[in-house]
Amino acid sequence: GEVKKIAVIAGDGIGPEVVAEAEKVLKRTEELFGYKFETEHALFGGIAIDKKGTPLPQETLEVCQRADAVLLGAVGGPQWDNNPKELRPETGLLGIRKALGLFSNLRPAVVFDCLKDASTLKPEVLEGTDLMVVRELTGGIYFGEKFRRDTEHGQEAVDTCAYNVKEVERIVTQAFEIAQKRRKKLASVDKANVLETSRLWREVVNEIAPKYPDVELEHVLVDNCAMQLLRRPSSFDVIVTENMFGDILSDEAAMLTGSIGMLSSASLGEGSFGLYEPVHGSAPDIAGQNLANPIATILSVALMFRMTFGYADAADAIESAVASVLNAGHRTSDIAVDKSQAIGTKEMGDLIVAAI
Amino acid sequence: GEVKKIAVIAGDGIGPEVVAEAEKVLKRTEELFGYKFETEHALFGGIAIDKKGTPLPQETLEVCQRADAVLLGAVGGPQWDNNPKELRPETGLLGIRKALGLFSNLRPAVVFDCLKDASTLKPEVLEGTDLMVVRELTGGIYFGEKFRRDTEHGQEAVDTCAYNVKEVERIVTQAFEIAQKRRKKLASVDKANVLETSRLWREVVNEIAPKYPDVELEHVLVDNCAMQLLRRPSSFDVIVTENMFGDILSDEAAMLTGSIGMLSSASLGEGSFGLYEPVHGSAPDIAGQNLANPIATILSVALMFRMTFGYADAADAIESAVASVLNAGHRTSDIAVDKSQAIGTKEMGDLIVAAI
Ligand SMILES: CC(C)[C@H](C(=O)O)[C@@H](O)C(=O)O
Ligand SMILES: CC(C)[C@H](C(=O)O)[C@@H](O)C(=O)O
Repeated sequence: GEVKKIAVIAGDGIGPEVVAEAEKVLKRTEELFGYKFETEHALFGGIAIDKKGTPLPQETLEVCQRADAVLLGAVGGPQWDNNPKELRPETGLLGIRKALGLFSNLRPAVVFDCLKDASTLKPEVLEGTDLMVVRELTGGIYFGEKFRRDTEHGQEAVDTCAYNVKEVERIVTQAFEIAQKRRKKLASVDKANVLETSRLWREVVNEIAPKYPDVELEHVLVDNCAMQLLRRPSSFDVIVTENMFGDILSDEAAMLTGSIGMLSSASLGEGSFGLYEPVHGSAPDIAGQNLANPIATILSVALMFRMTFGYADAADAIESAVASVLNAGHRTSDIAVDKSQAIGTKEMGDLIVAAI
Repeated sequence: GEVKKIAVIAGDGIGPEVVAEAEKVLKRTEELFGYKFETEHALFGGIAIDKKGTPLPQETLEVCQRADAVLLGAVGGPQWDNNPKELRPETGLLGIRKALGLFSNLRPAVVFDCLKDASTLKPEVLEGTDLMVVRELTGGIYFGEKFRRDTEHGQEAVDTCAYNVKEVERIVTQAFEIAQKRRKKLASVDKANVLETSRLWREVVNEIAPKYPDVELEHVLVDNCAMQLLRRPSSFDVIVTENMFGDILSDEAAMLTGSIGMLSSASLGEGSFGLYEPVHGSAPDIAGQNLANPIATILSVALMFRMTFGYADAADAIESAVASVLNAGHRTSDIAVDKSQAIGTKEMGDLIVAAI
């Protein structure tokens, strides 16, 4: 078969460790399913700042651009937190999203059975929660003009939030398509009672909705959504929203599942290209100690197989392998009830590889 | 003693019913404590749109301006939701905040013992939760320039978010003062890794912090705060943030207490003037049926006494009366376990009045 090129960005903190386990999984699926992958590693985030003087070296961008998909570990750490803007890992993250045209961030928030007690929500409230936040990722206040100016009341800082019809159309269309393949419910989240961008957003949603008559649409104000996620999480299916609201709500949604350490995400552009990464961060405090949980990164590979390559068989196999290892009681320390029984990053990776 | 003027805005939905009970409480405290109140009623929100053609008639503004404090019921309802912007209740709300200079919204989120089971959070997580969100209320993206323009990608909508040093200083100073009188912990919430307004915000916070060496300060990113509120609600004391983030986080915080129907809020400007209102909305579905819970509005009176008038004795008396009525087992239907035993709006008001 065709060789798929995967750009591998290990990043900072626990990034290299969890990515290493995901690469073992890649290798194993090559052997078992006959797929062929060519991986190319690239520097990004804090490590790229240290080694190349910029969080997103041109070379890294080129590695991504000639790849079919990107696997990302995690970026960031306290040592770069007080850097000037151009020398911060986040700036690389925003830069790579924009440069690769990744306008859509899919954040599935599901409850893993073995982790449901880890949630701070009551089990009966959580029951059946399985939602997907579709977040616009290359527009809005993240990318609008920003500046400072002097006023009679001291310096003033300004951020600009802008959305055009085309930007809203493509993300909303994608959300409707996703909802159609799931439980056919879409919540579009905005603040149309205050923001002009939200009013445009809502107009576009209402124009697209008739093309998806089988999808039940509700408009939810962002403040109300923050409440409803807590009150009735299982009633949501797909939530689509703009960049800033999506940042907040996807983290809230992930946290309420109690499974945040196990969740993966996809950032997609036009066509099948995508960047896949765990939802969790770089966890510098446990880096390099074989303590990190590699499951979210391994599940990111499954998501890549499913969404970018169309390798549903291998995706299923990986997801089943993860489930069987968890069902057999194996846990890394972050998800272990009895920490003394916990296994390490590598051991978890090996068990999953063996179970595929 | 001096006569205090209170502008009373009943508003829409259940507003008039809950405000009527709060007025009984006002009257009773006059009798018991010798305070003197002069109330003046004014039209606002949906009812003002219907009767005066605008959500915030000039007359209403004048009634508020000559008052020492404002008591507000609730505004809004589905019949005005599709109106053009100038004819929507929310526009009145934004207008009154700006016109009265109410730059600070205090939203205490506490757990009422009798309601802790109403929360979707586990009781052990909720235990000890007692936090206050201090939300900036007259700046940011709510009040920045908004417009549409044509682009090659269809219409584009633009919202502008701006903050100057003075605007940040006054709200942050207030938050430090409040924290100093509480558990001396302040979380300042921003998105400084992305927004210029947040970077200014953080700079100002860091400049003010040394004046309050006894207050423990943490900077929390807004997405992380949405998660931490769920994970460790009881660890927060005071949270200060800008307008849009405050809208979202204060609703999330209120909902997680399980006591949202009982929470009151204060909107303050310079000096002692303030507008007091329940956190809950106008609940048009139960309006006019003697079903609404008047407690949040009655507690708004207590908050007014404490914060604007300095009548701590009467505030204490009202709060104790509410507690004793609840402890005696009386419930309106929204908070009753056995709905058939529930009492009405008026009955709840009468019981509280009798208990003062
Ligand atoms: C690090 C930060 C810039 C980023 C964002 O806000 O998009 C992160 O929170 C995320 O959600 O991927
Ligand atoms: C109605 C709306 C404009 C308002 C706001 O967003 O400020 C409301 O949500 C609130 O929190 O008081």
